[in-house]
Amino acid sequence: MSAIRRFAPDAQGDFRWQAVDTLRYKQEGSAPFKDITRQVLFAPADQATEMRYFEIAPGGFSTLERHEHTHAVLILRGSGTVQLGRETHVVGPNDLVTIDPLTWHQFRATPESPLGFLCLVSKERDRPQLPTADERTALEGK
Amino acid sequence: MSAIRRFAPDAQGDFRWQAVDTLRYKQEGSAPFKDITRQVLFAPADQATEMRYFEIAPGGFSTLERHEHTHAVLILRGSGTVQLGRETHVVGPNDLVTIDPLTWHQFRATPESPLGFLCLVSKERDRPQLPTADERTALEGK
Repeated sequence: MSAIRRFAPDAQGDFRWQAVDTLRYKQEGSAPFKDITRQVLFAPADQATEMRYFEIAPGGFSTLERHEHTHAVLILRGSGTVQLGRETHVVGPNDLVTIDPLTWHQFRATPESPLGFLCLVSKERDRPQLPTADERTALEGK
Repeated sequence: MSAIRRFAPDAQGDFRWQAVDTLRYKQEGSAPFKDITRQVLFAPADQATEMRYFEIAPGGFSTLERHEHTHAVLILRGSGTVQLGRETHVVGPNDLVTIDPLTWHQFRATPESPLGFLCLVSKERDRPQLPTADERTALEGK
């Protein structure tokens, strides 16, 4: 049904879209990540894309990974960094991050602040790849 | 290329994503609308969806229309209203508006403020329909 969903703090002060289920990130997964929630905001039958909202708690981070499918990420709340390949960028509200196929990427919240962002992704997509030890060393520029 | 695009005021104080072309809304069209700009932020080859940013100037409005394809709209800036069928809702930053197939809809900025929003839409979509005089009267509840 056509609707308006408001983005507001819950009892814990975390921002969530009301009337949308909140899930833990990658409940199935064994990949390294920390303190992330996920809400699927929009995945209509006529669109091949999903829009999700992720919120990383202060000090948390997403998995360092890459995949063939692209992302468009819009930061809505808080502050943190995004790693794109070997570069790290400071990001905050209204920054739009586009991630090309097979680009290593990782989002981190600062120690003091959450990092909340929308992520647009195809419903049909390949599984993320994790870096080998050698790839991780190369990404760190050592 | 993977990138970060910043959302910042231009020389006129209007907010735009940097390094993205700004277009006039419906340059081809004859439908009634007023004072809208459009930026296509994200339309990658592997996704069937486009993300666009629209900004309606103070006092401006989008076309009252309906279509089979769905919209997801996220308000980013300013204030205004959205008409959904026969109901009108006040909207502001971080409100998420989902619009079902064949639902009449129109966005309006307040007289004092712009209304800026993201709109997610399928690349392949049907053409908007405009209301007949009778439909317009019914929508106004007269």
